[in-house]
Amino acid sequence: MGVEAHRELLESIDVDVDRHAKMMAAGFEGYKNQFMSQENRPEGMKYFDWLMSEMQGERIAEINELRKAKKPAVGTFCIFVPEEIVTGAGGACYGLCGGSPATIADAETELPRNICPLIKSAHGFKLQRTCAYTQSADFIYGETTCEAKKKSWEILSKHHPVHVMNIPHMKREKDLRMWKEEIGDFKKHIEEVTGKPLSLEEMKEGTRIINEKREALLRLDALRGMHPEIMPISGKDALFVIQMGFLDDPVRYTKKVNELCDELEQRVKDKMSVFKEDTPRLMILGTPFAIPNWKLHNAVENTGGAVINEESCIGHRYFKDNVDLEGVSDEDTFLERLMERYSKIDCACFTPNTPRTDKIVQMYKDRQADGVIYYTLSFCHTYNVEAHLVTEALEKEGIPCLVIESDYSPEDAGQIKTRVEAFLESISFKKKAAAFKNK
Amino acid sequence: MGVEAHRELLESIDVDVDRHAKMMAAGFEGYKNQFMSQENRPEGMKYFDWLMSEMQGERIAEINELRKAKKPAVGTFCIFVPEEIVTGAGGACYGLCGGSPATIADAETELPRNICPLIKSAHGFKLQRTCAYTQSADFIYGETTCEAKKKSWEILSKHHPVHVMNIPHMKREKDLRMWKEEIGDFKKHIEEVTGKPLSLEEMKEGTRIINEKREALLRLDALRGMHPEIMPISGKDALFVIQMGFLDDPVRYTKKVNELCDELEQRVKDKMSVFKEDTPRLMILGTPFAIPNWKLHNAVENTGGAVINEESCIGHRYFKDNVDLEGVSDEDTFLERLMERYSKIDCACFTPNTPRTDKIVQMYKDRQADGVIYYTLSFCHTYNVEAHLVTEALEKEGIPCLVIESDYSPEDAGQIKTRVEAFLESISFKKKAAAFKNK
Repeated sequence: MGVEAHRELLESIDVDVDRHAKMMAAGFEGYKNQFMSQENRPEGMKYFDWLMSEMQGERIAEINELRKAKKPAVGTFCIFVPEEIVTGAGGACYGLCGGSPATIADAETELPRNICPLIKSAHGFKLQRTCAYTQSADFIYGETTCEAKKKSWEILSKHHPVHVMNIPHMKREKDLRMWKEEIGDFKKHIEEVTGKPLSLEEMKEGTRIINEKREALLRLDALRGMHPEIMPISGKDALFVIQMGFLDDPVRYTKKVNELCDELEQRVKDKMSVFKEDTPRLMILGTPFAIPNWKLHNAVENTGGAVINEESCIGHRYFKDNVDLEGVSDEDTFLERLMERYSKIDCACFTPNTPRTDKIVQMYKDRQADGVIYYTLSFCHTYNVEAHLVTEALEKEGIPCLVIESDYSPEDAGQIKTRVEAFLESISFKKKAAAFKNK
Repeated sequence: MGVEAHRELLESIDVDVDRHAKMMAAGFEGYKNQFMSQENRPEGMKYFDWLMSEMQGERIAEINELRKAKKPAVGTFCIFVPEEIVTGAGGACYGLCGGSPATIADAETELPRNICPLIKSAHGFKLQRTCAYTQSADFIYGETTCEAKKKSWEILSKHHPVHVMNIPHMKREKDLRMWKEEIGDFKKHIEEVTGKPLSLEEMKEGTRIINEKREALLRLDALRGMHPEIMPISGKDALFVIQMGFLDDPVRYTKKVNELCDELEQRVKDKMSVFKEDTPRLMILGTPFAIPNWKLHNAVENTGGAVINEESCIGHRYFKDNVDLEGVSDEDTFLERLMERYSKIDCACFTPNTPRTDKIVQMYKDRQADGVIYYTLSFCHTYNVEAHLVTEALEKEGIPCLVIESDYSPEDAGQIKTRVEAFLESISFKKKAAAFKNK
């Protein structure tokens, strides 16, 4: 494994190397069991398998090489970070560890038990010093999208530099104006880290790189979900590819995702599906899945279903919109375009957030899906309250919907599996009844 | 009771009168048992006892008389509402019902179980049509201070007109600029309701009225808490007086609070305390107590302690700051002064919110209190996370602190009582040890 080879580097960034190595070994073991055991996986997944083994090794070495060259390393927890700017500055912008139950007990020495597990897990990784990404970050990019995070930064900032961006919770003209200012401030902060001005051309180049990454992910999303009879990749593998998009070098990553997509395209032509005919095809809506939170995907795909899309932040919400660079020739226009792109994000932090519901119904129709699971991380008030509005709209459309709220503990895995199984059965029954009626 | 006398009016504003009458009767019965049974109560509490019996009767009639005269009736859940403006327009600005467990099951048909009980209770009152204040409101004033509320407005607005003000979560110059705009928008909205322009003089007059109310409450706060040996009023009675400040006509209310304070002043001179010597004197920090949520005060005062201050929104946070009208001769300056006043509120929604911690320590010293209880309504992430920072600071100062998180269910009342009792015992022990050492 890649971690041992980088012991010296990991020590230099104050990782608790022994504990880290143990966690990574367990993580890779879990990955082997849950992912590499799947049948008929695309060849293109080999790169991502390698990345799994090197994500806390070789990739960390790359990031620290950039840092040596005075490039910024920015750790994030949210898709509101303008990664185009960090990429333009030649730096690395990545998602921090936050999907493991193994760090939560430590976090609960400083944070309440009844807040979102993602926040607690991430906080615990910092306290344990077991995430090499956190340890490599020049600063952690926080935002005000959810109140538990917003308040946790105040405690986290005692342990690591945190920069907080104020994301407005409405999208009126005056809110958007302020948002644009925030993006401008972020750019200035990056310039402070690198100690040199960032040019419009650099930022546009960074934007092109990220635009291409998002396009590759949209391509993957279409290939896995838009062909009702053929699913050329499992939902689990597709999710893992998306998760890696928050860690990998964007240029290499885009190339690898596109290579995988070429293969999937061929599979679609060859009608080669990794699921048997009539497998119920589900969309998952809601909150993000951070590595190694694969609980729900396992529940679905181990009980006869397939996940064809995640409408979440680690998913479609992340890559659905691109920055329009057409005719951008000054910084003000560039910042305006960034703001326009970011304000399209339909996070439940916004009030109102009705475009999200309309989008979900459209996505469902586009994919001819068979049902949706509305997934909320425990105690995530925004997505949890919004569930009522979304499920109401889905019901009106006759779309089968299961609502699941869960944290990272393995304790409810059995219960979730049982609920998913019953949901899949009811979908299959309806499909068969419909097919019988149409005969 | 006053409710029956107003049956026709209550029906006309679509109150479920029979259910409402039953709830009010039970509420008044509870009040009699918990409040009117206390010994040696000030004479001045008689007015507030009357108000308790008439708060959903005579007071509702008054509000609806104002409405007939085209004055605005604004229902709120938060102390960020610029009530000066509503009062200036001759209308009524009041807090909506939200402290009862009896409406929560109804709310949970539309809202998640694991959000704040205040939000659920208030939502349930609307669904049940058992709060005459909600039914009388031209609109409900919502804000974005907490995410569960922010998202609940989207559902509540299906049942009642809701106007939402975007309160920023930082206090940088640009945030304050936006805040001022929001206050200006609020004024315009009130003008829309009344159909006529609101003059600067009217708004200044409204401000004088509310300033005087806050001054009276500050006076009460000092009288109950600033004389270590004499507590001329119980914490429960003082809390109830404050709670009534969110419902009553402000001019009459101020007069009655000042009359009560005159009496308390005399009691202080006469060394007449409602608690025996050496009763541990506690401050309560945190989230608001809406009527009839008297659980914690009962737990403290029935087990040998006294509550001398609530640092909460229904408490000191509400009345600690006044609007400076000195030299205000144009609307822009007036809005600026309102913004300055409102931005002093140290709600846990702000990041950072360090002035709150400093204030708490100072308040504790000013009152020579014996300990504090940090109280959080369940699932209130902002106050819950901030508890860590506040208790850390209190510990450094050697201030005894008990943290309690609770909802409205009666189920944990016994457990809370046990914890409070142990806390009071440890405080008494420390006091005696200190006295012995000083001999």
